Amino acid sequence: MSDLLKQPRPDTGVASVSILVCASCRAAGADPDAPRPGAVLAAGLVRALDQDGDATVTVETVECLSVCKRPCTVALTGDGRWTYIYGDLDPKDGVETLLTFARQYRQTPDGIVPWRERAEAIRKGVVARLPPITIASSR
Amino acid sequence: MSDLLKQPRPDTGVASVSILVCASCRAAGADPDAPRPGAVLAAGLVRALDQDGDATVTVETVECLSVCKRPCTVALTGDGRWTYIYGDLDPKDGVETLLTFARQYRQTPDGIVPWRERAEAIRKGVVARLPPITIASSR
Repeated sequence: MSDLLKQPRPDTGVASVSILVCASCRAAGADPDAPRPGAVLAAGLVRALDQDGDATVTVETVECLSVCKRPCTVALTGDGRWTYIYGDLDPKDGVETLLTFARQYRQTPDGIVPWRERAEAIRKGVVARLPPITIASSR
Repeated sequence: MSDLLKQPRPDTGVASVSILVCASCRAAGADPDAPRPGAVLAAGLVRALDQDGDATVTVETVECLSVCKRPCTVALTGDGRWTYIYGDLDPKDGVETLLTFARQYRQTPDGIVPWRERAEAIRKGVVARLPPITIASSR
């Protein structure tokens, strides 16, 4: 999986979004030697994207996002868009939920998907959001 | 205050960091007509920075950071550094806490201030963090 994650996806010229998956956190009481839920989620996302031939969504595993009590935790980001952080995602069911949401997010100019169109796991899982990088960098 | 916030601080060539203060959230049970705690915090930060003549830290108020139950909420960001989101900050005491921390953050290359050097409100208030923008944008 790590090799897949390291390979940049081809630049298709299509606006793309990134899912950053925290690979550090562990479910409470989980076997310390078991694969981290974030690693399972990231592998599932990469597999699904490859199967779909979808190069508009990229996946990266990242170090601790400091939301340690709510695995799986991810951030969804894209140029000019609000960045969202979500927790409590299931490592298996989260794949379809996240890919559907990433595609909705990609269709928006600012990353703001209407509330009624968000899946329940997305509505409930929000941890925080940050304004578009272009705003955060206007100093 | 809004005028002060809109004026870009002079570019001194010194690496600067930004504090983004959520101006939307309200403390539970607060008078709906009272100033929002984030607005009070942002005004205090701007006043303190002006008094200190410190142009290395900028302050912006932003729309809802989606951490609605933990006012005041802020994000601390800087080029090449991890971005941190903190909640539960007091609108008055948070000024000194945040400015001290922003200056510690500015002294680091990556935004990671050693745990033992962080104030208690910073240790307890962390909501999430995001990798440096240069990483998040590598797609």
